[in-house]
Amino acid sequence: MTSTMLREIGEAAEAVGRQLGHNVDRLAELGARLRALDPPLVATIARGSSDCCALYLKYLVEIASGIPCASIGPSIATLYRTPMRLGGCVSVAISQSGRSPDIVDMQRAARRGGALAVALVNDVASPLAEETEVLLPLCAGAEHSVAATKSMVAGLAAGASLVAAWREDQQLADALSGLPEILRGQTAAPPTEMLEQLANARSAFVLGRGATLAIAAEAALKLKETCAIHAEAYSAAEVLHGPAELVESGFPVIAFLPSDAARQGMLPTLATLADAGATVIAIEAGGADDAHRLATAKVEATLLEPVVMIHRFYRLAEALALRLGRDPDRPRNLRKVTETL
Amino acid sequence: MTSTMLREIGEAAEAVGRQLGHNVDRLAELGARLRALDPPLVATIARGSSDCCALYLKYLVEIASGIPCASIGPSIATLYRTPMRLGGCVSVAISQSGRSPDIVDMQRAARRGGALAVALVNDVASPLAEETEVLLPLCAGAEHSVAATKSMVAGLAAGASLVAAWREDQQLADALSGLPEILRGQTAAPPTEMLEQLANARSAFVLGRGATLAIAAEAALKLKETCAIHAEAYSAAEVLHGPAELVESGFPVIAFLPSDAARQGMLPTLATLADAGATVIAIEAGGADDAHRLATAKVEATLLEPVVMIHRFYRLAEALALRLGRDPDRPRNLRKVTETL
Repeated sequence: MTSTMLREIGEAAEAVGRQLGHNVDRLAELGARLRALDPPLVATIARGSSDCCALYLKYLVEIASGIPCASIGPSIATLYRTPMRLGGCVSVAISQSGRSPDIVDMQRAARRGGALAVALVNDVASPLAEETEVLLPLCAGAEHSVAATKSMVAGLAAGASLVAAWREDQQLADALSGLPEILRGQTAAPPTEMLEQLANARSAFVLGRGATLAIAAEAALKLKETCAIHAEAYSAAEVLHGPAELVESGFPVIAFLPSDAARQGMLPTLATLADAGATVIAIEAGGADDAHRLATAKVEATLLEPVVMIHRFYRLAEALALRLGRDPDRPRNLRKVTETL
Repeated sequence: MTSTMLREIGEAAEAVGRQLGHNVDRLAELGARLRALDPPLVATIARGSSDCCALYLKYLVEIASGIPCASIGPSIATLYRTPMRLGGCVSVAISQSGRSPDIVDMQRAARRGGALAVALVNDVASPLAEETEVLLPLCAGAEHSVAATKSMVAGLAAGASLVAAWREDQQLADALSGLPEILRGQTAAPPTEMLEQLANARSAFVLGRGATLAIAAEAALKLKETCAIHAEAYSAAEVLHGPAELVESGFPVIAFLPSDAARQGMLPTLATLADAGATVIAIEAGGADDAHRLATAKVEATLLEPVVMIHRFYRLAEALALRLGRDPDRPRNLRKVTETL
């Protein structure tokens, strides 16, 4: 029987295609507003997987424009009740359900503080949508799996669309149009040998650099959630500063290797970890799968590589959960709506 | 024989006292400049433990002023070479050695981008000091332990001093003057039963909320570095979103419980984790140590609690390393200067 998680991974292509069609006009309008506003700062508001999506947006904004992007802790609004000073800034809230009370409160505080309030939300009939000036629906459709996949891919695509519209980046916009086709073609199961290597792991590192750091964080979250493997994300530039002390023979290191400037910085770190005994698995564009390599489809814009990579990775997480005798749709300690726990 | 780590934990009080005396005039001058500048954003530049210190500064700035604070990934300058747009902003670089090339490059890029470049540095004869307009020496003295402790406590105190001077917060300034005395009195070893509980752990969560999230991140790093325990930091508001799937009987959860508004938000989360089987250890001000509680000295300003708490925690990390038969001064995979790895 097919898991709900696997079925929804397969629906990501359709979700992205639907979203790109639906948001054309509002993206053009938002892009023009952002160029007129020329904000000194983008503030993001999100939790969990959506916060990984916010981190992707941060790298895109900073790489594309040099404008700094800050994740604002909801506690500033909900616990400390400090009025935020965000005059002339833009706030971007990201949420699948749009119902987490602290995210809604923080968006309200950002707007009161002077920010242009934008939101990337899947459920448009949500409280978050009401606190928002410019809504970008994710159009992922209802998501039933506890492990969010298609809404996450849709969120990443929405972030990239926002940046493409703002910066009038035609190359990124063109690459986005081709994304549904690329995701549709990416259906191969991960190699069995790779699953065997990972099946005995209690802990793991997931590495990225630049924009792939955002999906390393998301991948680590998914390995915890679906496989109960204690995977932790690190920048390849940080992992040798102290965390590397965990590495012993066979310790898995999963690396999201982009083809941009960050790649060359990651390779020596992976070699050092391999020397210390780590089993390194690379997720990268092109080539063929093998025991140490999960090959993703190629995409025309390097900034979109993280979207294609995490989509490919989701199949690994799902297959690994099954290999471990776990039901990816029924984690032991978790439910879909976190507030009720 | 006393470990270098333990000796340097004991030197933190003296370091903070020395720093407070040394920086009086430059803090007053910096405070006046920051009030005149009234920056829309504080950008921080740091890695490893220093990045945990930057996270503490972020909470202090946002709670005290509502001005957003963003950690800027050095890769934006070193790999992607995007010119940063930081006109009218302040950048704060934090580093013990002041020698990490990417931190130095990023500070240079921030300055070129228009930021007032401030640095918290222990080694004042460092390249980072040269790229900096306003230098706040940490005055921690030479640090020999691989696991930084006194320079970290000194960095947190410098961050709080910066905020006190900027906001002319006399209550925080007064509490800072009393900090060396409080740290000097905090010398008790952690309870043996607590060490026994932690000795079999492979993984752990370290939780904080608000400003204690910053030291949760630092504590998790230290448990990896000195004890090879895979400890990961989470906001108490995030941990139930997916990570909780790791929790099984006896899974350790170390919680830095502040006495401010964040406390009430943390308690139900700890109860949920305990119900799932977790062994919860709280680090909080006042009372007596027991198997589930590490008592810290009380401090007059709640924003300084994280400083006192992490200082108390360092003794736990050191004692646990010894209990595990490890030399806290000689990790297997790490060296003091990370660049050479």
